[in-house]
Amino acid sequence: MIIDSHAHVMLPPERQLAMMKEAGIDKTILFSTVIHPETKSTMAEFESEMNSLYDILDGTKNPLTERIHAINELSLIVKKNPSKYVGFGSIPFGLSYQENLEWINKYILANNFRGIGELTLGTGQSTHLEPLFQATTEAGNLPLWVHTFLPLNFEDIKELLYLAKKYPAVPLILGHLGGTNWLNTLKAVRELPNVYLDLSATFTTLAPFFAIREYPERTFFSSDAPFCSPLTARTIIEQITSDKHILAQVLGGNISRLLNI
Amino acid sequence: MIIDSHAHVMLPPERQLAMMKEAGIDKTILFSTVIHPETKSTMAEFESEMNSLYDILDGTKNPLTERIHAINELSLIVKKNPSKYVGFGSIPFGLSYQENLEWINKYILANNFRGIGELTLGTGQSTHLEPLFQATTEAGNLPLWVHTFLPLNFEDIKELLYLAKKYPAVPLILGHLGGTNWLNTLKAVRELPNVYLDLSATFTTLAPFFAIREYPERTFFSSDAPFCSPLTARTIIEQITSDKHILAQVLGGNISRLLNI
Repeated sequence: MIIDSHAHVMLPPERQLAMMKEAGIDKTILFSTVIHPETKSTMAEFESEMNSLYDILDGTKNPLTERIHAINELSLIVKKNPSKYVGFGSIPFGLSYQENLEWINKYILANNFRGIGELTLGTGQSTHLEPLFQATTEAGNLPLWVHTFLPLNFEDIKELLYLAKKYPAVPLILGHLGGTNWLNTLKAVRELPNVYLDLSATFTTLAPFFAIREYPERTFFSSDAPFCSPLTARTIIEQITSDKHILAQVLGGNISRLLNI
Repeated sequence: MIIDSHAHVMLPPERQLAMMKEAGIDKTILFSTVIHPETKSTMAEFESEMNSLYDILDGTKNPLTERIHAINELSLIVKKNPSKYVGFGSIPFGLSYQENLEWINKYILANNFRGIGELTLGTGQSTHLEPLFQATTEAGNLPLWVHTFLPLNFEDIKELLYLAKKYPAVPLILGHLGGTNWLNTLKAVRELPNVYLDLSATFTTLAPFFAIREYPERTFFSSDAPFCSPLTARTIIEQITSDKHILAQVLGGNISRLLNI
């Protein structure tokens, strides 16, 4: 089974299904989104949409209403296509243990989502995730999917890995493989079997190449659609992986095993 | 004609030619390199090789001997395969007008190279390129190819564009499309027809998508091999460009026109 392990809700939903079909993808782990850049046709409209995202990424905005709306949007789409989608639900940043637990029960478990993310932190905020690690432990060790490209630096990534070590039953997925810190990230996760590596958004194909070679059982193919098309993302992985067994694991087996799907 | 507009010398040379053949590339604009990550098989060896590069990128090293060796290596390979390669020659950073001119005569023009690069600057160094803009004007307006991914920030890119505006006869190729600043870069080059956009190393395919749509005559396909395979780089462009005429321009026509090849 070919699984795109990370894509955001795209509109209209038929387009997303068509792109999955074009790429031969059987199932997508679908994440909510507060922006829809794929619906913008001019560069100015696109920029305005991205600026909304950056306001969230840098912490200027932490929009509760938009977040809940996005979760409801995701939930509806997953329910309409249960064979095509598995949902991951987002959570506001900076909640206490109790608030995290309440949110997880109300918005993640109640929607049958199988993990939490995408978590988009600012520089220096990683340590504030500890209450979330505690809450997800209580809620059944739901995997956490964290964006680790900019604005995170390697210090932030090390803080995340410190939490992963402290909570070894919580699967931690490093979205975008540490970004520009991919090489240090690959070295740092050696002894942390609960840390997984998402292969999207890499600016050099040497990054997923080495990631797969070092961690063939902990690397996940994903498109991060709409930021890359599923077909292109799949093609990149297929062109850097010659071993068919490993390819099958990276393209679906590994995430399937983690999520029991 | 399909032209990979930016790749570094890879060893052994037969491998590079085989990768070009696999990708259906007729000609490559070849750049020298002081490192050969493609010859390293373990992650530790690769890291050590990359650290040498980072020492150059951050200005710790500016190795004259290695640079001249790399230029000689490039020159030999281009001379052996004149139908396959066009060379661009590197130049040390921080030379005076006169020193730049001497280097251009001795190492660029004498080798029949058609442009200058890859120029890898540190943050805040862009303005120091003015003597090079002056020297290349004197030497026949050779194109300058500048790495604009990290560590450059958007202020550095704006300084480069200021020089491009001041020297409108000098073609300036923005390598890697401004990196994480791609959207601001696309907006900033509108009125600068001597500025061209290299499409390699993008972490989201939306970047080359918008670049091509806004500037179909100023965008160049490239692999930045060994950091991406020519086949993967070509596939990415083909999958985001549906117009066949535009695709032909981006995959070869535009750089062919600029360099008269």
